[in-house]
Amino acid sequence: MTSEFDIIRRHFTRPVKRALLGVGDDCALIAPESDAQFAVSTDMLVEGRHFSAGTDAARLGHKALAVNLSDLAAMGAEPRYATLALSLPDADENWLAQFSEGFFKLAAAFGVELIGGDTTRGPRTISITVIGAVPPELALRRDGAKAGDEVWLSGCTGDAALALAHQEGRIRLDAGALAHCNARLHTPVPCVALGVALRGVASSAIDVSDGLVADLGHIGERSGAAIELRFARLPRSRALKTCADERLAQECLLAGGDDYELAFTASIDARAKVEALAGKLGLTLTCIGSVGAGEPGLVSVYDGNGKPIQIASKGYDHFGG
Amino acid sequence: MTSEFDIIRRHFTRPVKRALLGVGDDCALIAPESDAQFAVSTDMLVEGRHFSAGTDAARLGHKALAVNLSDLAAMGAEPRYATLALSLPDADENWLAQFSEGFFKLAAAFGVELIGGDTTRGPRTISITVIGAVPPELALRRDGAKAGDEVWLSGCTGDAALALAHQEGRIRLDAGALAHCNARLHTPVPCVALGVALRGVASSAIDVSDGLVADLGHIGERSGAAIELRFARLPRSRALKTCADERLAQECLLAGGDDYELAFTASIDARAKVEALAGKLGLTLTCIGSVGAGEPGLVSVYDGNGKPIQIASKGYDHFGG
Repeated sequence: MTSEFDIIRRHFTRPVKRALLGVGDDCALIAPESDAQFAVSTDMLVEGRHFSAGTDAARLGHKALAVNLSDLAAMGAEPRYATLALSLPDADENWLAQFSEGFFKLAAAFGVELIGGDTTRGPRTISITVIGAVPPELALRRDGAKAGDEVWLSGCTGDAALALAHQEGRIRLDAGALAHCNARLHTPVPCVALGVALRGVASSAIDVSDGLVADLGHIGERSGAAIELRFARLPRSRALKTCADERLAQECLLAGGDDYELAFTASIDARAKVEALAGKLGLTLTCIGSVGAGEPGLVSVYDGNGKPIQIASKGYDHFGG
Repeated sequence: MTSEFDIIRRHFTRPVKRALLGVGDDCALIAPESDAQFAVSTDMLVEGRHFSAGTDAARLGHKALAVNLSDLAAMGAEPRYATLALSLPDADENWLAQFSEGFFKLAAAFGVELIGGDTTRGPRTISITVIGAVPPELALRRDGAKAGDEVWLSGCTGDAALALAHQEGRIRLDAGALAHCNARLHTPVPCVALGVALRGVASSAIDVSDGLVADLGHIGERSGAAIELRFARLPRSRALKTCADERLAQECLLAGGDDYELAFTASIDARAKVEALAGKLGLTLTCIGSVGAGEPGLVSVYDGNGKPIQIASKGYDHFGG
């Protein structure tokens, strides 16, 4: 029978270059970097909650790492290392081979080394901790937004939620739109290059994982500021433009979650820099609102006529009602 | 209803002193330490596998952190930081208060700061990543044992397994012995001071979590050496001395697991140093065998007459038969 140690040896042990010691000891060892701080983040994905039973293992390996790298991106940190804790109902060799392939393919693309972890039998659960490097004082924190700053969004929100709406039968997407939305849901690409480029430019940043309004609320809370969002400015993907149900479109755009775009704030003086780096990175960066002096953490959404829009749900909360 | 963010705010947010940024952003930020490498380890505990449903939450908070700190101890690293990923079937305030109390009490005792993590709804699962500091070249790795080295053990093994044997009705412990064994099982104390003291003294080290023979086998595999264990030298706790079933006693001593003692190797020349630090730390350190030149990874156990003992189980394997 496959042992825990066989699984680690066969599927999760790759040579390390940067780390001093990788998988196979009580701990991994990593060297400090001159003029860099380490950014550390942990996420946990649970079957039935974050992904459904039967989810393609390669996609899952990709996504589990991607959501963590997205946190590093939001901090302006360059990915370095990851540990992986994996609970599985059985030692399915095929599943393990696919999962690790998806994981390592994304890891290689972003220069991440797997340095340790744990495997155990239990309900399918994945917990990853990532470590990245960022120069002192240049990390993109949530608490730096100031009244008068502009609020920016990379790419667009709503596609992942639209894929889920299709799954649930709330909308019928055409094949092209569905493929696009499914890719956005299952194999998101973390905005690492953007995060690094925003060092010294953005005053605060967050990755959009829970939903745009909820995540902007986190910036507002930590910064002691209110956020004013202009709904008409929110960019819409081609897929979302096909959605005739405006109520659903609004929900996807504002509260869909699983977007892994970056939302950030920057002073008006930094506008030219933001626009220049959009061009340089080939990304769409859109100014979607501003930071106000209202109630800290409050996110107000206004329509094209400046009238407030009531929103039903702000975003995803794992223990919320 | 209690939100994910309320849970984190109420139960898992404490001020940090050493970390540059703690819980509440996309990532935590930690500073490099001059003349130190970081040791990193991740463990996952699953209900029904590592602990039973209804396990006292405070004990669980203690143990989940303790097993990780034990990995740092085995590396000779001083604990610094932890992240905690927690999947829970419900937001039980009482459980959360007790779990976090057990966690933070042990964290405070060892100077560990909780810097981040994740909470989600799902089967009760705990995954912790710890980060510790160790001077360059002084980490206690598994791969440094050399033929001729002596094999040492801190304290004694078997008590945690004996507590489980009592639970399963395989033995009837008296109240005093049961209390002792239960404490060893549920609230193990990681050998952090010993690990630090062994820097530059031990040639290799591991913490005994899977079972003494299995864990010594890991040292043997990584060091390319065989281990010869003298069964008669293994120290027995007062509780284990009351065990009349010698077959059970042997199983507990050699393959029980969950001991969180340190097994290490040291050259014969280092014997006086090892004995001196046992006295200084008030610990029992026992020479239990030697490193040989036989088949790498092979652990042979000999009785008092030098005859090999056949062992039924080497230790715990989460996917083994």
